[in-house]
Amino acid sequence: MAAEYISQAVVRRLPRYMRFLSELKEEGVERISSRELSDLMKVTASQIRQDLNHFGGFGQQGYGYNVSKLIEEIGRILGMDRPHNLIVIGAGNLGRALAGYGNFSKRGLFIRALFDVAPENTVTQVRNLNVYGMEALPAFLEENDIDIAVLTIPKDNVRQVAQQLYDLGIRGFWNFAHVDLALPEDAVVENVHLSESLMQLTYYMKN
Amino acid sequence: MAAEYISQAVVRRLPRYMRFLSELKEEGVERISSRELSDLMKVTASQIRQDLNHFGGFGQQGYGYNVSKLIEEIGRILGMDRPHNLIVIGAGNLGRALAGYGNFSKRGLFIRALFDVAPENTVTQVRNLNVYGMEALPAFLEENDIDIAVLTIPKDNVRQVAQQLYDLGIRGFWNFAHVDLALPEDAVVENVHLSESLMQLTYYMKN
Repeated sequence: MAAEYISQAVVRRLPRYMRFLSELKEEGVERISSRELSDLMKVTASQIRQDLNHFGGFGQQGYGYNVSKLIEEIGRILGMDRPHNLIVIGAGNLGRALAGYGNFSKRGLFIRALFDVAPENTVTQVRNLNVYGMEALPAFLEENDIDIAVLTIPKDNVRQVAQQLYDLGIRGFWNFAHVDLALPEDAVVENVHLSESLMQLTYYMKN
Repeated sequence: MAAEYISQAVVRRLPRYMRFLSELKEEGVERISSRELSDLMKVTASQIRQDLNHFGGFGQQGYGYNVSKLIEEIGRILGMDRPHNLIVIGAGNLGRALAGYGNFSKRGLFIRALFDVAPENTVTQVRNLNVYGMEALPAFLEENDIDIAVLTIPKDNVRQVAQQLYDLGIRGFWNFAHVDLALPEDAVVENVHLSESLMQLTYYMKN
């Protein structure tokens, strides 16, 4: 529906709205004007009106935006109107950090287990989540409705593991390995290349 | 110089060029055509020519790009023509994951120490790096030439800690806390809001 007409730039900004609006809701705020949201988010009020008008325009003159409704609507657009079940591949420091991150479950993103090539070298549980060997993957995915795999393994193995996960039915990949995946077109990949983010920082420090 | 005229979109793409070119160099490749780079990076050859012509155009008809020179030039633009020294604030799983990440030092980004409010609850060393208590910060920054702080602490404390680091002379902040910092204008902040990246993934899975 409306979602189809939203530009990539707006889609990139929506999660940030989500974060600020969720904090407002937690603080008990029920409505907010574009002006107040503008002060808070350090974005112009007209940018906010423009962004939020993309999908319905919940703002009413002299009333502002209904915070809960806006969260619900942005959540629907972002595909968060249903829960997602995740597994983490790699139970090293990064995998454990992500598994311990409380904010995901608040947003309906549930990490269900971790997998590692050498689970005996790592912990057996992370925040009540089991750490399994990679050989347990097929049976686990058979029995559990998992739609996203979080890849925190070294780049040498990640393409092969991603392909295996794809063959087992996973279509969502959140990739922290320092390499682009090569998967069929119906796979959705979001890359987090941390050193690229760090290079943005050094660029802006220089310029 | 030329760097001033580079658009934000190109700056966002440069680290990715850096990654592919560095891999080529490691494999012993000395020159590459925009066509070959295009196949590798899954970007059109004309996009590549356009991006790389922004700063000098090292490509020569029938010769291609000199890989080493291109790495050097992109590195210079990205502020990586000098080493950067980093400290990590927070020695939890995420801080330890970042401290153990070998790729940073390859690019002249050196993590020098970790700091934690409760170092006695964590490890005392991560990959030969010491973990200090927060009270050791002023003396450490006095004695070491640190320009970037990596913030992996909970959002409740992060603004206060960032301000303290700023007052001690730090101007570069790589922020993993789930909150925007409020620092004077000469501070450079690069945010990594992981749950926002995950929401991009769920969006593209839905649409």
